[in-house]
Amino acid sequence: MITSTANSRIRELVKIKKSAKMRAERDVFLVEGPKMFREIPKGKLAEAYVSESFLNSASGRELLKETQINAEAVSDSVFEYLSDTRSPQGILAVVSQFHYSAKDLMGTQTPALLLVLENLQDPGNLGTIIRTAEAAGVTGIILSRGSADLTNPKVTRSTMGSIFRVPFIYTDDLETEILALKKENVRIFAAHLQGSVEAYSEIYTGPTAFLIGNESRGLSENTAKLADQAIRIPMHGQVESLNAAVASSILLYEACRQRLS
Amino acid sequence: MITSTANSRIRELVKIKKSAKMRAERDVFLVEGPKMFREIPKGKLAEAYVSESFLNSASGRELLKETQINAEAVSDSVFEYLSDTRSPQGILAVVSQFHYSAKDLMGTQTPALLLVLENLQDPGNLGTIIRTAEAAGVTGIILSRGSADLTNPKVTRSTMGSIFRVPFIYTDDLETEILALKKENVRIFAAHLQGSVEAYSEIYTGPTAFLIGNESRGLSENTAKLADQAIRIPMHGQVESLNAAVASSILLYEACRQRLS
Repeated sequence: MITSTANSRIRELVKIKKSAKMRAERDVFLVEGPKMFREIPKGKLAEAYVSESFLNSASGRELLKETQINAEAVSDSVFEYLSDTRSPQGILAVVSQFHYSAKDLMGTQTPALLLVLENLQDPGNLGTIIRTAEAAGVTGIILSRGSADLTNPKVTRSTMGSIFRVPFIYTDDLETEILALKKENVRIFAAHLQGSVEAYSEIYTGPTAFLIGNESRGLSENTAKLADQAIRIPMHGQVESLNAAVASSILLYEACRQRLS
Repeated sequence: MITSTANSRIRELVKIKKSAKMRAERDVFLVEGPKMFREIPKGKLAEAYVSESFLNSASGRELLKETQINAEAVSDSVFEYLSDTRSPQGILAVVSQFHYSAKDLMGTQTPALLLVLENLQDPGNLGTIIRTAEAAGVTGIILSRGSADLTNPKVTRSTMGSIFRVPFIYTDDLETEILALKKENVRIFAAHLQGSVEAYSEIYTGPTAFLIGNESRGLSENTAKLADQAIRIPMHGQVESLNAAVASSILLYEACRQRLS
């Protein structure tokens, strides 16, 4: 059992927790808690760590028996040091990062439904968007490099496991990715406060991508003009804009609704 | 100019900032920043405080001239002490609380559209919901007493001014309020993971109320059974539930869509 925070593996884990650069170098990210742990896809688990008290709990023994993994035990105080949460849940996994191709984002069962996020910066918003996207039937997500990092422990956690299931890529060149979607006959809609058309007047049953911009600045002009159509979510009252996760949810679920009916 | 945090008014303001009980006793809440300040309804402003550097800035002078209010100046360090934000924006207002009647929640222009929140506890979720509700055309919001406090500075801020415009009431007795809505011919829909009907198969163009439950536990059984219909938002993949603000947004905007078309 590891009992010291000076242990070299513990020091490495803390670096992975804190640094996006380190996660990219090591090609891994961290996942905490039994619920998320059970959802890790086969073959993706690199290492597992459990706290002493989790190891000695009924639920801990059950999880380890059920999943048949070898977990390294650490003392409770070391586990608290490792954990990113206020109430550590006793199990932490090192998971290999996902590497999707552009083709993976197009899905196979239904016409493609994509979300393209430009410099979306709030970690909580991003996690909520990934979770909602899976529920709405999104086939893939493209993020500009300036967006929040999905492997940030806070974002990973707030996806509630959807990070394991929704294909995504980060890109340095959003324009090239959007143009490639157009070549695949994906219709591109920019969510825009000055959109000339109301979001509910368009059809999203064919291959569709929604472009969503930064929380405070919206889409850049360069990105917005790549769209086939700028669409506007109707707003009553004196509201100037919607939260980015809310706007994404409304548009994705409108596509979901049209595809169901 | 007030230069000491020991000043009796400053100590009172900090109590108001920190304590829901004190806000209720004094019947006020706090609003920060020039943007929110401009949106305070006429007659609701009780007191205003500005930082020394805001008072001496062009934008500060302009705001005070434009709104013609007498603001008490405080030193920058005292203002930082008062402020609830990391980057204080130099103006803080004490605003009288709103007292709406059940009738106020029904609106006048359109069939009533209400949101009923049971023990919704995340302050960020609540702020986002109020903002989205205004945008979707909600006529009023009913919150159970166990819900987050709209006069909490973090919630107030995240409503982006919608707190001034969407009628709301807190109640100790959600059941009585829901039964009163039914007497007014408002159709009550419970958002429920086990809803027997898909949300998109119902009509929300008449007087409508959506019941939304707590983030982790959903609606209580007692509240859910008061609904005329339990509705289920369709979910693809392995998602178990949606964020409460997302679920509210999807339902409110479905009502908005139906009412527009």
